[in-house]
Amino acid sequence: MTDATIKTAAMLAIGDELLSGRTKDKNIGHLAEVLTMAGIDLKQVRIVGDEEEAIVEALDALRERYDYVFTSGGIGPTHDDITADAVSKAFGVPCLHDPDAMGLLSEMYQRRDMEFTDARQRMARMPQGSRHIANPVSTAPGFVIGNVYVMAGVPQVFQAMLDTVVATLPAGTRILSRSLPCPFGEGDIGTLLGAVQKAHPETSIGSYPHFDGKRFSTELVVRGRDARALDAAAHDVAAMIEALTMEREGAKSKDLGTGELA
Amino acid sequence: MTDATIKTAAMLAIGDELLSGRTKDKNIGHLAEVLTMAGIDLKQVRIVGDEEEAIVEALDALRERYDYVFTSGGIGPTHDDITADAVSKAFGVPCLHDPDAMGLLSEMYQRRDMEFTDARQRMARMPQGSRHIANPVSTAPGFVIGNVYVMAGVPQVFQAMLDTVVATLPAGTRILSRSLPCPFGEGDIGTLLGAVQKAHPETSIGSYPHFDGKRFSTELVVRGRDARALDAAAHDVAAMIEALTMEREGAKSKDLGTGELA
Repeated sequence: MTDATIKTAAMLAIGDELLSGRTKDKNIGHLAEVLTMAGIDLKQVRIVGDEEEAIVEALDALRERYDYVFTSGGIGPTHDDITADAVSKAFGVPCLHDPDAMGLLSEMYQRRDMEFTDARQRMARMPQGSRHIANPVSTAPGFVIGNVYVMAGVPQVFQAMLDTVVATLPAGTRILSRSLPCPFGEGDIGTLLGAVQKAHPETSIGSYPHFDGKRFSTELVVRGRDARALDAAAHDVAAMIEALTMEREGAKSKDLGTGELA
Repeated sequence: MTDATIKTAAMLAIGDELLSGRTKDKNIGHLAEVLTMAGIDLKQVRIVGDEEEAIVEALDALRERYDYVFTSGGIGPTHDDITADAVSKAFGVPCLHDPDAMGLLSEMYQRRDMEFTDARQRMARMPQGSRHIANPVSTAPGFVIGNVYVMAGVPQVFQAMLDTVVATLPAGTRILSRSLPCPFGEGDIGTLLGAVQKAHPETSIGSYPHFDGKRFSTELVVRGRDARALDAAAHDVAAMIEALTMEREGAKSKDLGTGELA
């Protein structure tokens, strides 16, 4: 299913707090959903701490390989916010106070009668040659350089920035999906499902186990970009579930009177 | 703060469902918390899909570099569960049905009067030479080979396996932390906080913005392995917050009568 028109993406989430467990990331899952809706394939995610070397290395590996790289975190005003510096280093350009960003921030703080401190001015720093990503929530812009989209870590701000960004990206062919609840555990369906997958190579069939504390069930998700192929695969998955259900009910009526299984 | 006695770790979360947004990962944050408690530094996380090449590449990069690598996902019975194969490939050993795992699973299914299908037998496959990680929830074991700990993706099973694993690792010096709520946004504290960090190089001071829909506040977290250094840094952070609060109240009493700021 390699298709040159399908764009690929990676995410780099930045922040010690994600690696210490203090903050549970909320941006990865959100980005994943938004990109899927936009028909862009998220292929890899990395999380690194607030260390310049780690950020530069991950960024270089990802931007080389994927069409888009989206980052979250590290663009605030404090000493541990070093994403702008690290991105500048990766691109080999100076990290400067952007005049437009300085203007936006200065005006906003003036309007609020608040001091435009050195720390706040840090938020206007970005790699030379960047374009802004608007921040309707708290003004300080994200930025784009090359194929790298640098956004805030605070989820409300990340989401607002991402909405702006995604609207500017060429839309891919959206991945369609069909979800089928299945009352059987993966062990009951694995072999049959493997055969269904083999018969429908244009689709990707995922099996997601759910454990309710006593027994496993699964949700089967058929994905693909071609609606007809998707329908055909989903039809065969549904037939498989029905056949297994009838088989189980046959077994139950034979077992009648033996009581519940342990 | 390089310390040879501190062990480092990475996590590799495996599964297309994490990259499509269908499933929101719950294991990364949990692992991060557990490792922090155990005094082990989680340095990097990667998420890749169910593709052998991507898994092998990430695994090789991480196991070379960090003391421990923990993986989640891809060890179930369905066709898209390819973690055991990928790990075997990375280590250059065959992926075999482990006799002990076959015994455990076969017995469990017999006890439940369920068929031990080919698909279920897949769950007994692991790289030759692996040791088991017990699975008290659903029997099918995870495994350890070299410095790689391979665990299930279902959070209840991942957590149970991790409890077992962490108990076997040499405990590091636990990272201590002190959390101080701060009613100021990062822009108000950035410069001062940078100075406090500079004065306390043995600690790491993080600043975590919170946005309540109207304004930012922060939580300041001082971390370190030495209790005395931690106390000293936390003391200076608290003094900084107090000084800023007094300054703000001074400003407010001057502003008396001018009403609320926009």
